[in-house]
Amino acid sequence: MLFHVRMRVRLPHDLDPGVVERLKREEKERAQQLQRAGTWRHLWRVVGQYANVSVFDVDSADELHEILSTLPLFPYLDIEVTPLTRHPSALDPT
Amino acid sequence: MLFHVRMRVRLPHDLDPGVVERLKREEKERAQQLQRAGTWRHLWRVVGQYANVSVFDVDSADELHEILSTLPLFPYLDIEVTPLTRHPSALDPT
Amino acid sequence: MLFHVRMRVRLPHDLDPGVVERLKREEKERAQQLQRAGTWRHLWRVVGQYANVSVFDVDSADELHEILSTLPLFPYLDIEVTPLTRHPSALDPT
Amino acid sequence: MLFHVRMRVRLPHDLDPGVVERLKREEKERAQQLQRAGTWRHLWRVVGQYANVSVFDVDSADELHEILSTLPLFPYLDIEVTPLTRHPSALDPT
Amino acid sequence: MLFHVRMRVRLPHDLDPGVVERLKREEKERAQQLQRAGTWRHLWRVVGQYANVSVFDVDSADELHEILSTLPLFPYLDIEVTPLTRHPSALDPT
Amino acid sequence: MLFHVRMRVRLPHDLDPGVVERLKREEKERAQQLQRAGTWRHLWRVVGQYANVSVFDVDSADELHEILSTLPLFPYLDIEVTPLTRHPSALDPT
Amino acid sequence: MLFHVRMRVRLPHDLDPGVVERLKREEKERAQQLQRAGTWRHLWRVVGQYANVSVFDVDSADELHEILSTLPLFPYLDIEVTPLTRHPSALDPT
Amino acid sequence: MLFHVRMRVRLPHDLDPGVVERLKREEKERAQQLQRAGTWRHLWRVVGQYANVSVFDVDSADELHEILSTLPLFPYLDIEVTPLTRHPSALDPT
Amino acid sequence: MLFHVRMRVRLPHDLDPGVVERLKREEKERAQQLQRAGTWRHLWRVVGQYANVSVFDVDSADELHEILSTLPLFPYLDIEVTPLTRHPSALDPT
Amino acid sequence: MLFHVRMRVRLPHDLDPGVVERLKREEKERAQQLQRAGTWRHLWRVVGQYANVSVFDVDSADELHEILSTLPLFPYLDIEVTPLTRHPSALDPT
Repeated sequence: MLFHVRMRVRLPHDLDPGVVERLKREEKERAQQLQRAGTWRHLWRVVGQYANVSVFDVDSADELHEILSTLPLFPYLDIEVTPLTRHPSALDPT
Repeated sequence: MLFHVRMRVRLPHDLDPGVVERLKREEKERAQQLQRAGTWRHLWRVVGQYANVSVFDVDSADELHEILSTLPLFPYLDIEVTPLTRHPSALDPT
Repeated sequence: MLFHVRMRVRLPHDLDPGVVERLKREEKERAQQLQRAGTWRHLWRVVGQYANVSVFDVDSADELHEILSTLPLFPYLDIEVTPLTRHPSALDPT
Repeated sequence: MLFHVRMRVRLPHDLDPGVVERLKREEKERAQQLQRAGTWRHLWRVVGQYANVSVFDVDSADELHEILSTLPLFPYLDIEVTPLTRHPSALDPT
Repeated sequence: MLFHVRMRVRLPHDLDPGVVERLKREEKERAQQLQRAGTWRHLWRVVGQYANVSVFDVDSADELHEILSTLPLFPYLDIEVTPLTRHPSALDPT
Repeated sequence: MLFHVRMRVRLPHDLDPGVVERLKREEKERAQQLQRAGTWRHLWRVVGQYANVSVFDVDSADELHEILSTLPLFPYLDIEVTPLTRHPSALDPT
Repeated sequence: MLFHVRMRVRLPHDLDPGVVERLKREEKERAQQLQRAGTWRHLWRVVGQYANVSVFDVDSADELHEILSTLPLFPYLDIEVTPLTRHPSALDPT
Repeated sequence: MLFHVRMRVRLPHDLDPGVVERLKREEKERAQQLQRAGTWRHLWRVVGQYANVSVFDVDSADELHEILSTLPLFPYLDIEVTPLTRHPSALDPT
Repeated sequence: MLFHVRMRVRLPHDLDPGVVERLKREEKERAQQLQRAGTWRHLWRVVGQYANVSVFDVDSADELHEILSTLPLFPYLDIEVTPLTRHPSALDPT
Repeated sequence: MLFHVRMRVRLPHDLDPGVVERLKREEKERAQQLQRAGTWRHLWRVVGQYANVSVFDVDSADELHEILSTLPLFPYLDIEVTPLTRHPSALDPT
């Protein structure tokens, strides 16, 4: 099942730089782990913003929330989730 | 070059049914033609709305506009275009 | 899997009254059919508006879209879909 | 009487971690107490957000405000309250 | 129980003048009937708009919806309902 | 002359508790003083929010601004002012 | 007493041209009558829009509503009213 | 003096095709006339929309309004005007 | 040339009181200087808000920006600028 | 390829003044470097705001993001990117 997820990162400017580095590193590791698992299907950066557009392929909304809410950057993310379904004109549903 | 495009269809309720059918058929043909060409890379239906989220792979913004503005349903589409770029954590840029 | 769905009905004022009646009757039949099937889990009217808040229990987002997009009133509905998941403090997940 | 309540939690990032833990623990206790009393009828987590959608069954708006305004997390909650009523197509009013 | 209700009237410009007159007359009769009953507690016109701010005193949200949804002008009203409760500094709760 | 005023209180979370207590006490005293004078005609709490809806009866907009801008909590208030006038269907203008 | 009023004109495109001309002529006559009376104190056109920003000097909000709601174009106006008061730095209150 | 102008064209779908063609032709002629005069300094199409972003070089806001309000498509344009000034880092003010 | 300018002051609550006093004093001096010069043509306080509506009479947008951006409170101002032009029904253009 | 970019600068008021100065100086150097390279094609200040409207001429969206995300002020910028294309009435595509 596919979910379109838009994430905008809002890091407080007075957050400790060391913490910021660690969070970013952990976030990248987690993101790549999920991509290798085929769960984080697509991940694109929005031009000009500290934001991404992603598509997740999960078995349930519960699974999606588990993933998103345990992302290292989660406390600093504005997230919008839009469930997707096959488009009648789509040749390839993925 | 990837562009994220969100299209919402707003067909006037008093539009001639025959015109509506023709426009929908032509739109589907055009969409599938562009998918086969690899231009309309992703096409998903937004659950609960007459709307889609798409990703286009084009050589320029001019090409994208040429495609979108000549879609049969274009006069009835609310379109939002967001340019995408590779995410630093993305394993696969597409 | 639970989805929170908010529907607002916007019937054009110049729609044929006979059509309106038929659509409403069919919508009610369909809604009650889905409630009996346990799919349309909760259906409440928003006070003061021709709108409802609903919770659907479906196996997938595809199934939800199939249900919503084939509702008789679908062409006249503004729909917002919000995927739900179990709340850590919820005693009862439904 | 049913009220639809959407709560979004916005904890300041520089709030003392000990205070945060205590508030969360007390919030959970209170939420479960109200669920057992049948007042907090439904409690769902919004996927991807530190937010919930709830339905309260109370005897009056006064009672609802008393409950919401004394929640431990109240000072950090964005709350939207929507009164509900029975939908003419609903088989089960709850 | 008090509800704050904001109503904005949007009459289509091509609605038959006779119908408009009848609706307005019936709306006024109904509004005054409800005021005499003490239900429509306050009714003010918003300066510069075909809109009003009202306060209703009802026994339940169901009753409020019954009243609002059967107003002659209901199909042409944008309505926002805000439940009220006693303010801790209010000398008079009404 | 009646003005509808909606006030939302946004107290910074790191404001000194002693200052908060004093401001709230002074605000209550002032609000009750103005109610006794008949100026602050109606004062209701919005359910679920640290906000109120009020109706002021003043001789001029200048007087209203003088009152609002000298409220102890003024620096922490989001205020929306809507001038009211007698509704043609209102039996009682107040 | 001064009120800032922003008016945006939204004439339906299918309104009879003769009616439009009459309304415009009457609106101009009324506007100039009110200016001569000193009531419609300032009247400016917003660049690029069929809209104006005005300042009215009236004795009450009732009077302002009486003026605005009887403007020939009133049914086609989006109006926002903002009460003004003397600015502490203003040398001239008008 | 430079003004940034964003125009969105909203042609009613039931406008006579002949009228639409004439308006478009006249709009193009006028736009090119103003470009040759150096007034309509920049004119770009927004990708995916029947909208443009333009920069006008005029001697006054009056002149700009005269130009915009006499554009053939003016009745069907949503226009936003933003005055520009030289940026302190700009090497070329135009 | 007239510009309508709406300014909302958002002073951080933890700004040093001495700085706040100085900024306010300097702002008042500057505002009165510009009023005496005929540049700051109108200055009104919005009732209930720490905001003003002003009309500036300047020779160019550059001059307006120079004035606004050098106001002592500029770093704490939300500013909206709307260019004005003579209204066809205005007896007095100022 | 042209992109319209609107940037609004939101510097936290408690940011170290020395850091602010350095960032501004570096931002100016970078902006002028890009202008000399013909990449930052147009750069205008929005009157009354710490914001700019720009047009970039780049070979790809990737290049644009690389430029924007490495601007010294990037962490404090709200950025909106709108892809542009040649307008059918434009005499000069730039």
